[in-house]
Amino acid sequence: MIRVAVVGATGYAGAELVRILAGHPGVKLAALTSRRHSGKIFSNVYPSMAGLVDMPCEEFSAESLAESVDLVFMALPHKLPMEIVPVLIKKGVRVVDLSADFRFSDIAQYEKHYQPHTCPELLKKAVYGLSEVYTEKIRSADIIGNPGCYPTSTLLPLIPLIKAEFIETKRIIVDSKSGVSGAGRSPSLTTHHCEVNESFKAYKVANHRHNPEIDEVLSREADKPVHVTFVPHLVPMTRGMETTIYASLKKQTSTEQIRSCIREFYKGRPFVRLRVEGTAADTLHVKGTNFCDISIHADEAAKLVVLTSAIDNLVKGAAGQAVQNMNIMLGLDETLGLMAVPFPL
Amino acid sequence: MIRVAVVGATGYAGAELVRILAGHPGVKLAALTSRRHSGKIFSNVYPSMAGLVDMPCEEFSAESLAESVDLVFMALPHKLPMEIVPVLIKKGVRVVDLSADFRFSDIAQYEKHYQPHTCPELLKKAVYGLSEVYTEKIRSADIIGNPGCYPTSTLLPLIPLIKAEFIETKRIIVDSKSGVSGAGRSPSLTTHHCEVNESFKAYKVANHRHNPEIDEVLSREADKPVHVTFVPHLVPMTRGMETTIYASLKKQTSTEQIRSCIREFYKGRPFVRLRVEGTAADTLHVKGTNFCDISIHADEAAKLVVLTSAIDNLVKGAAGQAVQNMNIMLGLDETLGLMAVPFPL
Amino acid sequence: MIRVAVVGATGYAGAELVRILAGHPGVKLAALTSRRHSGKIFSNVYPSMAGLVDMPCEEFSAESLAESVDLVFMALPHKLPMEIVPVLIKKGVRVVDLSADFRFSDIAQYEKHYQPHTCPELLKKAVYGLSEVYTEKIRSADIIGNPGCYPTSTLLPLIPLIKAEFIETKRIIVDSKSGVSGAGRSPSLTTHHCEVNESFKAYKVANHRHNPEIDEVLSREADKPVHVTFVPHLVPMTRGMETTIYASLKKQTSTEQIRSCIREFYKGRPFVRLRVEGTAADTLHVKGTNFCDISIHADEAAKLVVLTSAIDNLVKGAAGQAVQNMNIMLGLDETLGLMAVPFPL
Amino acid sequence: MIRVAVVGATGYAGAELVRILAGHPGVKLAALTSRRHSGKIFSNVYPSMAGLVDMPCEEFSAESLAESVDLVFMALPHKLPMEIVPVLIKKGVRVVDLSADFRFSDIAQYEKHYQPHTCPELLKKAVYGLSEVYTEKIRSADIIGNPGCYPTSTLLPLIPLIKAEFIETKRIIVDSKSGVSGAGRSPSLTTHHCEVNESFKAYKVANHRHNPEIDEVLSREADKPVHVTFVPHLVPMTRGMETTIYASLKKQTSTEQIRSCIREFYKGRPFVRLRVEGTAADTLHVKGTNFCDISIHADEAAKLVVLTSAIDNLVKGAAGQAVQNMNIMLGLDETLGLMAVPFPL
Repeated sequence: MIRVAVVGATGYAGAELVRILAGHPGVKLAALTSRRHSGKIFSNVYPSMAGLVDMPCEEFSAESLAESVDLVFMALPHKLPMEIVPVLIKKGVRVVDLSADFRFSDIAQYEKHYQPHTCPELLKKAVYGLSEVYTEKIRSADIIGNPGCYPTSTLLPLIPLIKAEFIETKRIIVDSKSGVSGAGRSPSLTTHHCEVNESFKAYKVANHRHNPEIDEVLSREADKPVHVTFVPHLVPMTRGMETTIYASLKKQTSTEQIRSCIREFYKGRPFVRLRVEGTAADTLHVKGTNFCDISIHADEAAKLVVLTSAIDNLVKGAAGQAVQNMNIMLGLDETLGLMAVPFPL
Repeated sequence: MIRVAVVGATGYAGAELVRILAGHPGVKLAALTSRRHSGKIFSNVYPSMAGLVDMPCEEFSAESLAESVDLVFMALPHKLPMEIVPVLIKKGVRVVDLSADFRFSDIAQYEKHYQPHTCPELLKKAVYGLSEVYTEKIRSADIIGNPGCYPTSTLLPLIPLIKAEFIETKRIIVDSKSGVSGAGRSPSLTTHHCEVNESFKAYKVANHRHNPEIDEVLSREADKPVHVTFVPHLVPMTRGMETTIYASLKKQTSTEQIRSCIREFYKGRPFVRLRVEGTAADTLHVKGTNFCDISIHADEAAKLVVLTSAIDNLVKGAAGQAVQNMNIMLGLDETLGLMAVPFPL
Repeated sequence: MIRVAVVGATGYAGAELVRILAGHPGVKLAALTSRRHSGKIFSNVYPSMAGLVDMPCEEFSAESLAESVDLVFMALPHKLPMEIVPVLIKKGVRVVDLSADFRFSDIAQYEKHYQPHTCPELLKKAVYGLSEVYTEKIRSADIIGNPGCYPTSTLLPLIPLIKAEFIETKRIIVDSKSGVSGAGRSPSLTTHHCEVNESFKAYKVANHRHNPEIDEVLSREADKPVHVTFVPHLVPMTRGMETTIYASLKKQTSTEQIRSCIREFYKGRPFVRLRVEGTAADTLHVKGTNFCDISIHADEAAKLVVLTSAIDNLVKGAAGQAVQNMNIMLGLDETLGLMAVPFPL
Repeated sequence: MIRVAVVGATGYAGAELVRILAGHPGVKLAALTSRRHSGKIFSNVYPSMAGLVDMPCEEFSAESLAESVDLVFMALPHKLPMEIVPVLIKKGVRVVDLSADFRFSDIAQYEKHYQPHTCPELLKKAVYGLSEVYTEKIRSADIIGNPGCYPTSTLLPLIPLIKAEFIETKRIIVDSKSGVSGAGRSPSLTTHHCEVNESFKAYKVANHRHNPEIDEVLSREADKPVHVTFVPHLVPMTRGMETTIYASLKKQTSTEQIRSCIREFYKGRPFVRLRVEGTAADTLHVKGTNFCDISIHADEAAKLVVLTSAIDNLVKGAAGQAVQNMNIMLGLDETLGLMAVPFPL
């Protein structure tokens, strides 16, 4: 059986990977690494998993991982992966990287918004892991740049309409809202309960690093430069991300036509669900799942289409999509290990 | 001393009126009415006020109110006020109505979105109570149509820019987020804790009755038809409303010019605060206050200005602004009873 | 394959049963009934399950159920089950009832705290479904009275110590705290988000109907009358129940002896977990799981043992334990369908 | 007018002191100090107060404070105050200290649970600031050891019954629950929103440093050694503390007798409120106030009285009681600056 490892297993995305992989019927979770908690039993860091994931957390060692596993999930802050991944790749280990280090095609964009890239040759070979859109390339990829949570929730509803040329590519507005787990596990004033509770606010207005990531993918799909106005907000909840998108219609188009367009685009792809007409996407309905729920609405007076999407930022926005990509890479059913019946609430 | 009454005192907006008026140094809270709780001591309905507001809730009677008070706050669902207000006005009682019944200038708009209006002659005399904008008219008004919460949070940042002709009046996007208290005190699945918690969702997308209210005021100020695309969302918190607004700049304008424009417009009006540059409005900072915090940002690549505003939906969005209007009507300082030092969190 | 039905499928406990049973590898979920939502697709009531549980909700009919299923879960308010269950039993259908109707051995206790019992003869045959304690009787039972959530969280830590005669049976204090989902899905002021949020309070102090249920079971196990002082509290969260128990030690006993006693009692029973020493049970660690986490502490100066337990009130406190009981009744592994790797948060 | 300062103004208790003192009609808030934020405008740290508290935060200097103010509130972690306070006292400045440094009469207890005490002579002169109980001593005190939040919520309901000898002093159980703000503003995993949300847990079971503080005061009032079993819990909310107390009745006593006892004890003291019979204390009802709500219940079968109390941990549990003590020290009405009408929710 394929053996996998999670590097950076004790952050929130890492722990979510552990949850999914420990219950995955097609692979064996063979190693966990954690700088901070190395030497500890994983379930002492996340006691919910006591009795189920009692493996130790190890120090990271590329050599030792290369010997013991076939595929590695990297759940580290950006900058670290581009230093580590080349060694793993050289030793024949495939990588799904959840940082930004392998997401960009245009290295200049990466370097503008992050830092100098230390392995541009690998960046060229990396595939952007938006599972439903780049499925074929993912299949044979050795490195996946797993998409950011905001880009995932934005791109899934938009790409079909961009490709169908239903909407103008100018003045697309993306108003996104994220739960707090997106900020990671490191304590900070931003994640302090008393500062989060009863607080709703925008941050990094039109200035977030997921903006160029969204722009690059949309530009590729539209085959011309696209820039969206992107504003993220913080919601007083743990999990979940809702995105409301406003786009001008090129010509008169009914919501039913738009529904059909999106439905056709994702035909046979179970993780994209269209909401019942007249209702909007709700983060509660996707909590703990790999689903992306989408709704379509019109403001006819303004000739605008309004799209809403909801994902769990830690699942479809991170660990779930990473495992979905692994499934595709390994030729498994893309839903394997990801289709538990969701909680009613 | 001026005697006032709250009609519908046991709903959330009514109770917030009671809180403010019971502590107001310039008026005497002389009567409370409540259909559901008539006969009960108010502080048995809201035990936080035990020892401070131990008045009984009465059945509503226009006659009895007209004898005992000079000014009435109506905190009832729409439709009821337009039946009651005429009687009060005839008896010389001034009215601040928190429902939609006296908000519209264009009766056709009201009737399209609500129901037939039963006292159009009074509607004509009513003044829209956006305190900072219609101050002069409010001073001498007998009936105030107190603005909706969404319109308040939208109009305060937008009107200065509309009047200064800094922004296009086409394709204004208003993405609003409200705490749950906006849905009122009547229990429903929408307000059930388990359905709210960890849930973020849009509702009534481009289809909310506050949309025509916003459109009418902006059209009046712009002196031409304005239609904004308005999408409200529900946030898992009790109080607070954040609104993010996207508008196209007519010509190159710096954020500093926009800041100045808004600052000048609200000069001498303490309830509108501009946020420190680089930070966005946060509902936590206005909780329990009558402030409207505003921030200004630019997406230069898209020639857009992004505005965020934050209010407490029950205070500046309802009861607080109603009392501010009363202060203006009575020739008092507009901040009287409304300027307690806010909680740090 | 064994066919099962959920009666009252659209309440919270019912929906949780649907979640577990729809993913259960050993049975087939063959029918759902709901008075309120009869005729609707289940996933239109709980959209999280769209694509996974798209069965219709039916009107309840004992005849039709008896023909189509082998075992029925009843998730109705008490009083209804005792009218329905006799018909099902007569037709050879086994029943797991989540109400109080079949929990009591002493009919007088039931009638004192609920209402006259209409089928005392079946009550005698019913088995109290505390899975880890009454396993043998559950195996051959036709009717299970599934325990209340508070009793489950109280009895699991206490019974081993009662049976080992480590603690006095007098003056046991049980201070319990429950999430809001325990109040069910029907909207009420008690479950209104704005009344729950930032609210912590006791209710039905020493006067809750789970108190006699606890007393009866403990009396049976102690073989003498036991009465605990039981105070439930409401916590501003959706799922989870924590119980803190205070009991006098009969003689000097170390916490390690008490740990051993509980560990031995639940040997081989994976759903009872002892917390790492020095840490207390946390509802976050059992959210969405069938675990009961237990911790043991001493107040030596007072010769008291302090126990804490945590369960998910909808799982081990309701639907999960019900399915565990079904597994035992059917001779399946008791963990079947209940051992998904828990979420890290 | 009396001039006061807050030392440690940017922690949560400090900021709450600033809120109350900035609005206090009887004193002038003349200086704020903060190590971390020295040089910043206070309202840049707490933007809710923008326009209302725009004073700078200074470095602490005993000399400079002694020149500019008459009374100092210390809101620092314990250990620091005992180094600073002697200098202030020598210069004739009165001090209300919110740390534990001046709470204990028995220095051995302090040193056992904290560290060596560096100014035992001042400790002897300090008065324990439980406002309603030690009013006379507070009046003339130069140093107040302001009570901990848990002790305040425990002692106010218990002391009248201890003094009236209604209850046994053995085996008193105190089960307390606190909001997260009690943990202070410094970020940690304990206060991380994602670890708090949906989490309820006990901590420091029978091992919290407020336990000896409670024991000492009760022993003094009972005139014999009293030890309570004290277990604190963390509630997923910002503000509020609920305490449930279980005590054995010495002889048959009705709840009405107990109500009368407590009512008489606190006669004329407006901050202690008895809840309407049959209802328990609720943190929501005291949020943002200096009230302590108390309820009385009986478990007759166990000959126990059950008391519940609710306070706002940052107000009556810290800053509010500190200001109440200042009012008493200055001969002002004890409610001055503390009696704003509370929010309905």
